[in-house]
Amino acid sequence: MGLRTAPPPIAWLMRQALERPRVISLAVGFTDEATLPVNETRALLEGILRSTRRGRAALQYGTTAGDAALRACAAARVRVQDAGAPGARGGAAYLPERLLITNGSQQLLYLVTEALCDPGDIVLVEDPTYFVYLGIVQSHGLRCRAVRLTPEGLDGEDLKRVLTRLGREGELGRVKLLYMVSYHQNPTAITTSLERKRAALDVLRHFERRAGHPIYMVEDAAYRELQAGDAALPASALVLAGAAERVVYASTFSKPFATGARVGYGLLPRAVHQVAVRLKANHDFGTANLLQQLLLEALRSGVYDRHLAVLRKRYACKAAVMLDALREHFPPAVGWDEPRGGLYVWARLPPRHKTGLRSRVFREAMARDVLYVPGAMCYADDPTRRKPAHEMRLSFGGARTGEMRVGIERLGAVLAEVC
Amino acid sequence: MGLRTAPPPIAWLMRQALERPRVISLAVGFTDEATLPVNETRALLEGILRSTRRGRAALQYGTTAGDAALRACAAARVRVQDAGAPGARGGAAYLPERLLITNGSQQLLYLVTEALCDPGDIVLVEDPTYFVYLGIVQSHGLRCRAVRLTPEGLDGEDLKRVLTRLGREGELGRVKLLYMVSYHQNPTAITTSLERKRAALDVLRHFERRAGHPIYMVEDAAYRELQAGDAALPASALVLAGAAERVVYASTFSKPFATGARVGYGLLPRAVHQVAVRLKANHDFGTANLLQQLLLEALRSGVYDRHLAVLRKRYACKAAVMLDALREHFPPAVGWDEPRGGLYVWARLPPRHKTGLRSRVFREAMARDVLYVPGAMCYADDPTRRKPAHEMRLSFGGARTGEMRVGIERLGAVLAEVC
Repeated sequence: MGLRTAPPPIAWLMRQALERPRVISLAVGFTDEATLPVNETRALLEGILRSTRRGRAALQYGTTAGDAALRACAAARVRVQDAGAPGARGGAAYLPERLLITNGSQQLLYLVTEALCDPGDIVLVEDPTYFVYLGIVQSHGLRCRAVRLTPEGLDGEDLKRVLTRLGREGELGRVKLLYMVSYHQNPTAITTSLERKRAALDVLRHFERRAGHPIYMVEDAAYRELQAGDAALPASALVLAGAAERVVYASTFSKPFATGARVGYGLLPRAVHQVAVRLKANHDFGTANLLQQLLLEALRSGVYDRHLAVLRKRYACKAAVMLDALREHFPPAVGWDEPRGGLYVWARLPPRHKTGLRSRVFREAMARDVLYVPGAMCYADDPTRRKPAHEMRLSFGGARTGEMRVGIERLGAVLAEVC
Repeated sequence: MGLRTAPPPIAWLMRQALERPRVISLAVGFTDEATLPVNETRALLEGILRSTRRGRAALQYGTTAGDAALRACAAARVRVQDAGAPGARGGAAYLPERLLITNGSQQLLYLVTEALCDPGDIVLVEDPTYFVYLGIVQSHGLRCRAVRLTPEGLDGEDLKRVLTRLGREGELGRVKLLYMVSYHQNPTAITTSLERKRAALDVLRHFERRAGHPIYMVEDAAYRELQAGDAALPASALVLAGAAERVVYASTFSKPFATGARVGYGLLPRAVHQVAVRLKANHDFGTANLLQQLLLEALRSGVYDRHLAVLRKRYACKAAVMLDALREHFPPAVGWDEPRGGLYVWARLPPRHKTGLRSRVFREAMARDVLYVPGAMCYADDPTRRKPAHEMRLSFGGARTGEMRVGIERLGAVLAEVC
């Protein structure tokens, strides 16, 4: 099994960022160092561990699915976020017993994919998509079909075309899920509208009759809370009719709070939840209770939301700095859209200019100690289309603003030479 | 994949223990509540988070394989433990770059099994063995062959018989690893001697020529530090000739310190380490950095070892309480050996009396609010032998001493009625 697992590019990029202190990493989605809630965490942990009773509970094993209070709290939080959005309904999808606490949302994606897919199965992904998810896909021996992404999000018409073609090829029986990053997508920063989610779910429901089994929609909402402004975000797919039995909603407290205290979660259809909990019992019995208690206390006390407000302002500011630098230093042939949240800017070179690990752009950038994620890493291996190789993902999450300006300036110089 | 994953009995047993507060659980391997290092943890975290620099590092992502200082510290700890034991050698097996930090040793076992095995492969396990490992095996679609366990540990002669038979059946090519719990085994409390480990490794090496690939020895040393007395324990299999390329050594800081702060680790042959790190990147990028820093600080400051000394005395005392109660309340037809460490007593009823979930003994015990692990759960599905069903695993880890006496008394009454 493992032997087919290729080295994940994220690991290499993270190591570069950690081991070469001079490198300006615009690659990895590290969180902003200066805003990490050190004092808040100290106070919260102090509060938990001052009480013998609570302290002991935090240092003991918990249940595999997670702490009951945290599960209820997380489920209610998603429900409230959706209730505030147009088109929202309450309902079965938000029941705490459908919630699963995981080691970051990454583990949730892993468990769900492990639960639903067999080697050789097909998963549908956005084009481009979150590249670490492609590692999960590769590791499980799955195949991908990419679905077009437009500025409004996943294109339902293209989804229909992809599934129609798979039907003609006799492959519908292998299609198990659609994976989408619905808010401030990684890497493009696109947010998918609720209409687009509804359209996609309708298409999946339509084709699952011929597939002979459910085709799940896995909505990765990891960046939902990291929005720059105050504009209302679309509701999650959980509000849609039938969602309770078809939508897996994955999210996390790690990026909005502290990535060193990894606590993610998901709301899952009952049948998927049951299997995912079993798998999690085999993986690790359950996420470390101490971290769960920390997040629970952060949420209950309001510390989490106060920190989130600070963080959102901070990222909005860092995004503005990056965009300013891009306007100043990138040649006019390079385009990008302005993100409204998340941690990334997706820059597009003219298609003839490549950005991959072996490209002149990447090598020149590395020579000047600047690291980015080559766009091609974010595209699935899909035999039905050529993989674009002229884009780059730039993160404004981890780098300091001064560094970021320097990094973009250096990268701009490289691009000016090449383009 | 996941759909073949059966509900793990551990999850059910843990839930009973957590959700039915009146139940006296002698089943789950929870750690002793009263000794959980609440004050120590508070002070250590306070120390880490008082410094902005260290605090930020602890709240940021780390690398997938784990914090470099903790990896070095854990590797050195195993080296020292082995150096103190007869037959020890230093060497390549203890290099920190072979160490991987995981979410408890459970995740290490999962990753290694995922790395080495394909569905349909065969793993060799002790008879009986750690039942949660059987969940991993089942979930990956693997088959088991059980190897006889004697009071000195795994029986090399029986290992040879099992492999010879597999050779006759043309199945040697499917045998990928031998899993053993080498110190104070779960469930029998047996410690395997170094001679037995050497014999086993020799047998594996002998047969791997015909298998056509390495057959790894996975040594689970989770209970190594939880010994009751001061007698020298055998060295790990890492001291054996050729071990650096064949032995996976798994252990944990969770049970000896705090199960709510799950940090396990393993020393792995280079090739296995590389694949396990890739898989871990797909699972979760790396174990929560905050927990790693907590354990590192506990180890460096001496808090870990001071706590361990307290814990060992505490478990020795609880084991004595349980053994006293067993002598007082269990009928003479029931036998057991005195554990020298770990968390378990393995009790044997006369073979005609069953202890399974549907047995009269189990149901009567549940009716009196006492929970144990039925022995049959600890035996692999091995078509070549009948599964014994007359034993029970009793844990002196989690229950309070008073509870434990009551629990054993009630269980004794049930057994007196039945046997």
